[in-house]
Amino acid sequence: MTAILTAERALSPPNLENELLEHVLFYGGKTRRRSYEYLRSLLESALSFAEVQAHYGDDITAQRKRVFRVFRHVEETILDKGLSEDEAKLLRTIAQDITGLASPTLLHEAMFVPNIASLFSPDQQAAWAEDIRSHKWLGCYIQTELGHGSNLRALETTATFIKEADAFEIHSPTLTSIKYWPGALANTANIGVIYARLLVDGKDLGVHSFLIQLRDFATHTPLPGITLGGIGSKFGFNTVDNGFAQFDRVRIPRLHMAMKFNTLSKDGVYARVQGAKREVSYITMLQMRFFMIIGSGKQLSKAATIAVRYSAVRHQGANASNPSEEMQVLNYQSQQHRLLPRLAESYAIIIAGNRLLSFAQRATEMVAQGSTDAGVLALTHATGCAVKVFASELSTRGIEICRRGCGGHGYLQTSGLPELVAYNAQFVTAEGENYVLSQQTTKTLLKMLAAARAGMVASLPAELRFFETIDAPVEVWDATQLTSADYEALFQARLLGILVQMESTAAAYPSLEEAIQANLILSHHLSMCFGKFVLVREFAALLNTTPIAPENKAILDDVFALFCVSQLLEDMSDFLALGCLPLKAASQCQTLQIAILGRLRPHAVTLVDAFGFSDIALNSNLGRHDGNVYEALMNASRAYSNDSTVSFDEYLEPLRAKARRAKL
Amino acid sequence: MTAILTAERALSPPNLENELLEHVLFYGGKTRRRSYEYLRSLLESALSFAEVQAHYGDDITAQRKRVFRVFRHVEETILDKGLSEDEAKLLRTIAQDITGLASPTLLHEAMFVPNIASLFSPDQQAAWAEDIRSHKWLGCYIQTELGHGSNLRALETTATFIKEADAFEIHSPTLTSIKYWPGALANTANIGVIYARLLVDGKDLGVHSFLIQLRDFATHTPLPGITLGGIGSKFGFNTVDNGFAQFDRVRIPRLHMAMKFNTLSKDGVYARVQGAKREVSYITMLQMRFFMIIGSGKQLSKAATIAVRYSAVRHQGANASNPSEEMQVLNYQSQQHRLLPRLAESYAIIIAGNRLLSFAQRATEMVAQGSTDAGVLALTHATGCAVKVFASELSTRGIEICRRGCGGHGYLQTSGLPELVAYNAQFVTAEGENYVLSQQTTKTLLKMLAAARAGMVASLPAELRFFETIDAPVEVWDATQLTSADYEALFQARLLGILVQMESTAAAYPSLEEAIQANLILSHHLSMCFGKFVLVREFAALLNTTPIAPENKAILDDVFALFCVSQLLEDMSDFLALGCLPLKAASQCQTLQIAILGRLRPHAVTLVDAFGFSDIALNSNLGRHDGNVYEALMNASRAYSNDSTVSFDEYLEPLRAKARRAKL
Repeated sequence: MTAILTAERALSPPNLENELLEHVLFYGGKTRRRSYEYLRSLLESALSFAEVQAHYGDDITAQRKRVFRVFRHVEETILDKGLSEDEAKLLRTIAQDITGLASPTLLHEAMFVPNIASLFSPDQQAAWAEDIRSHKWLGCYIQTELGHGSNLRALETTATFIKEADAFEIHSPTLTSIKYWPGALANTANIGVIYARLLVDGKDLGVHSFLIQLRDFATHTPLPGITLGGIGSKFGFNTVDNGFAQFDRVRIPRLHMAMKFNTLSKDGVYARVQGAKREVSYITMLQMRFFMIIGSGKQLSKAATIAVRYSAVRHQGANASNPSEEMQVLNYQSQQHRLLPRLAESYAIIIAGNRLLSFAQRATEMVAQGSTDAGVLALTHATGCAVKVFASELSTRGIEICRRGCGGHGYLQTSGLPELVAYNAQFVTAEGENYVLSQQTTKTLLKMLAAARAGMVASLPAELRFFETIDAPVEVWDATQLTSADYEALFQARLLGILVQMESTAAAYPSLEEAIQANLILSHHLSMCFGKFVLVREFAALLNTTPIAPENKAILDDVFALFCVSQLLEDMSDFLALGCLPLKAASQCQTLQIAILGRLRPHAVTLVDAFGFSDIALNSNLGRHDGNVYEALMNASRAYSNDSTVSFDEYLEPLRAKARRAKL
Repeated sequence: MTAILTAERALSPPNLENELLEHVLFYGGKTRRRSYEYLRSLLESALSFAEVQAHYGDDITAQRKRVFRVFRHVEETILDKGLSEDEAKLLRTIAQDITGLASPTLLHEAMFVPNIASLFSPDQQAAWAEDIRSHKWLGCYIQTELGHGSNLRALETTATFIKEADAFEIHSPTLTSIKYWPGALANTANIGVIYARLLVDGKDLGVHSFLIQLRDFATHTPLPGITLGGIGSKFGFNTVDNGFAQFDRVRIPRLHMAMKFNTLSKDGVYARVQGAKREVSYITMLQMRFFMIIGSGKQLSKAATIAVRYSAVRHQGANASNPSEEMQVLNYQSQQHRLLPRLAESYAIIIAGNRLLSFAQRATEMVAQGSTDAGVLALTHATGCAVKVFASELSTRGIEICRRGCGGHGYLQTSGLPELVAYNAQFVTAEGENYVLSQQTTKTLLKMLAAARAGMVASLPAELRFFETIDAPVEVWDATQLTSADYEALFQARLLGILVQMESTAAAYPSLEEAIQANLILSHHLSMCFGKFVLVREFAALLNTTPIAPENKAILDDVFALFCVSQLLEDMSDFLALGCLPLKAASQCQTLQIAILGRLRPHAVTLVDAFGFSDIALNSNLGRHDGNVYEALMNASRAYSNDSTVSFDEYLEPLRAKARRAKL
């Protein structure tokens, strides 16, 4: 079999894989790649294959043991080698990439620590630094409740200020107020940041965040008044112990309230730092969304890698022009149509995810430094929401399409695909349910449009400069000569068309909130259009600035064009109804898409190789780099044992006896 | 909580649920419903709740034991009560409906026995009847191979005729020829029908079917020369033991070849019954597809029931017009837009599935009686393919949409939704991968169109009479007055438009096969258009013939209209580009859809109640009939145990020790 994939790889320019890996998919180039490979080798040299790889069918405890062993090794390496903070982050990412295992300890790194850094005062941070550094603390982020996920303002948990004790009492007053879902809460974490309503002198001051110890640091048993437990088996992601917590008047010191933007004095005087927006509280979720964008892209690119390689190896069905020959599945137009747009979507999401992350980091740093600039925060928020929504929709749909594209074998766990479907499914509801997030995007876009209408275009963030062209006519359509600027202009024109439609619809309502709530289908669509536009814009910007060889650039241009044309076709009725495209464009785009599929077909295997997944990371019998899929499938089947006695003892024998008696 | 769903139910006409259950969803009316309820009570009175319900998180062996116990009880009841064949079938269906458990023994009933009846001669059937009746035999259907799923003509397993022994030698000559995937093969079945290439005197006579004993009937151990095993853990459906089988020159008697349509004499003379089509061999798969259509509808309707009920109970987010009030999630337009079309799709699939089943039974009986009428068989095949494809696409997509519509809680196994996603995912690749099946539909439609062009319209089966209107103009569009006939005409016109497009595209190719293979995207689309048209046609036909009260009929009309308008919107660019609809129809359909959503909203809970699932069958904490979801979630969480020592022992303690040492 190996020969097949070797032949496939020979179809592309020899340096295509490297250039894509370094300049396109690894934002940051050769240097970052070198760090990545060095750090990966540190991990791989110390851990065995069996240790780092998730094993399908293992029970939860075995899986959790493996996770903790791997991630303990990661932290030990960070200590041993004295890695920098950036290197430490990268090493943790690598561990996740190559194991495919999610560690509950990542909630500590990704949510708990950043939350402390963003919302707690410098004094608080200084006081706690050593407990974090020494691994005395292992934290989690406790927000969602049994009855309250999307509407955070309705959280019921209370933090009542007890002046005489200089403390808060954390309490779960109702069934629906039980904290439910936080990752690492069930078993792993011993401390957390909790969101609760601040009550001072009987006055409800709204939701604030507090540091709360959950378990004894030495014995790991829950503290008095705190009931902790797991919420049960999930679709996927079962190595992370999502849990519940119920609080029975648990006291914490006053100084455990997050004090960077709000303060409460000893005698109960509450103050808000001037200009601080309530939304700042949710900065941790904002950050998480940008990681979820990249995560969506990575998961989708894994699925695309598996499906493309297997479709190159797999032969099935007679060639109609030469019936004695079986076809490579990847040579079917329909298979290209299923898989290659997923490949292009992976590129688009990863590219945008990498680029937007620095945008988000800028916003986060501003907040960490105490800035309260509402404009940047709102735009970051709206962009994160829209792109998280669109990227997670694309990746969940795309992974399932890749799974189907592997036929029956894609239903086997050892294909790796069911686990990707199940793992990834959480992205559409976690850190903001997609339809809820859309409303936030719409609100921001409408406000910015109003600002633009009022002549305040210049004051808008650069990323929204496209408002300048509200009234510019769409260029003449020529399907044979489409540049990246043309595609960007088309998606921009469509976005503006839908935005203006939303604006005029909204005019009939007394408030923006009511207008959006009465038109949620349109609002969600608008948010998706914004997400699509951002992906097109970021990909186009990369094409204009990334120095790669012309023969490789031509292939990447086609990946971009395939992404755009596929999206045009999906939303064709929009483009037609808005007059962005003439009626004939529908069939022209179909023809164009087929032409691009044909041009990209020879490079498909190299284009997925460039995602850089090792066989360990893919963990798939179908997606192996060497293409020896049938041997791998049979080896896995032979190693799999199940029990024939059950059917015989429980069914066949008793039933036969009965039939014999019936006959007598 | 109960009050909420009680109030919801009071919004609909009091007899809506009953009329839908008996006349719309239970094709066959009150009588069949009575049998169903009688048989269900037989089962429920004898088995405990714990026994009949699938338990999330149980290991495979425990699940399989439960399955066998339930289905043994089913067969015992059939014997004890002397049930008729129809009643026996119904009881097996009920067992599957209420347990949510798939039994490997159903492969015996659904594939093995019908295959014997369809393809083996009356003499063969008579000789074996007692072994089947007495449960000596438990059969399976052995077709797919490791390297061959879709292209059955390329199967590699051989059945070599050994004249001197009056026997065949069944053999697996290669790795890729190993039989792989058959359900019940790994552990359950002791006999099967196997598909293998018939070799006589060195001549390859193509794929035929043979009866082959796999295990000793008394000891259940595999017979000499046969290696059996399981293929491993799957996405879902794990109670069925899909397996592999490798054959090393295993002898079976000559009279085990299926002899109804082909015969082989003692001295090696091969004959085919006059007019018999090779396709007859695959009649069992044809039948299975019609069961899969109904199965797709049932699974989708389960998901819709869970999501609609939970969305009625769940309150989340402030009402924009009255911010102190939290909204019922089902009152959000976007939630209605997500869920109610899934409800309508469930109706459309179940209605069409019920109606088409009788169509398929007619074809099967003709074959069983030896008929070789190619026209009916081809049409049945094409219809089964197209509707299986479309129905399975709708249900897999729809179940996932329902899962997402339940927010984070839909990611919990005890919501019942992840298991539905995983179980149902097989329908898109099993019994004919969807893209492969599409080609068969296209081929039949093109042939029938050619017959119609040649003036042979009258000779076409009644179900294809729509060809008569090839050149009829589309009626004038009036979005305010659409009858079921209008919708049917629109979907027919679109189908014809795409068919004619395929016809003219195909004209440029030397053969039909080459034309289809070079245009697989269009071919798949054409097949989907046919599937959509059939669903619209069958639903419309039911509306015209089913006697229900006018107030209920008006609601059912809206369910139908919602299905149609949602499909129009999804394919709007087709309707626009083909000129079936004017440009303004795009926004008019959006407006119309929103209006219908609003009209159906009050009846949503009753419309899902009418699917008739008990709480046992739904097996969902979110979908409970009484709406007490939060109590159920917390009860399940409290019962769930997991281990806090792992994170402490494997991670936290060793890491702290290391940090302490590093500090020294």
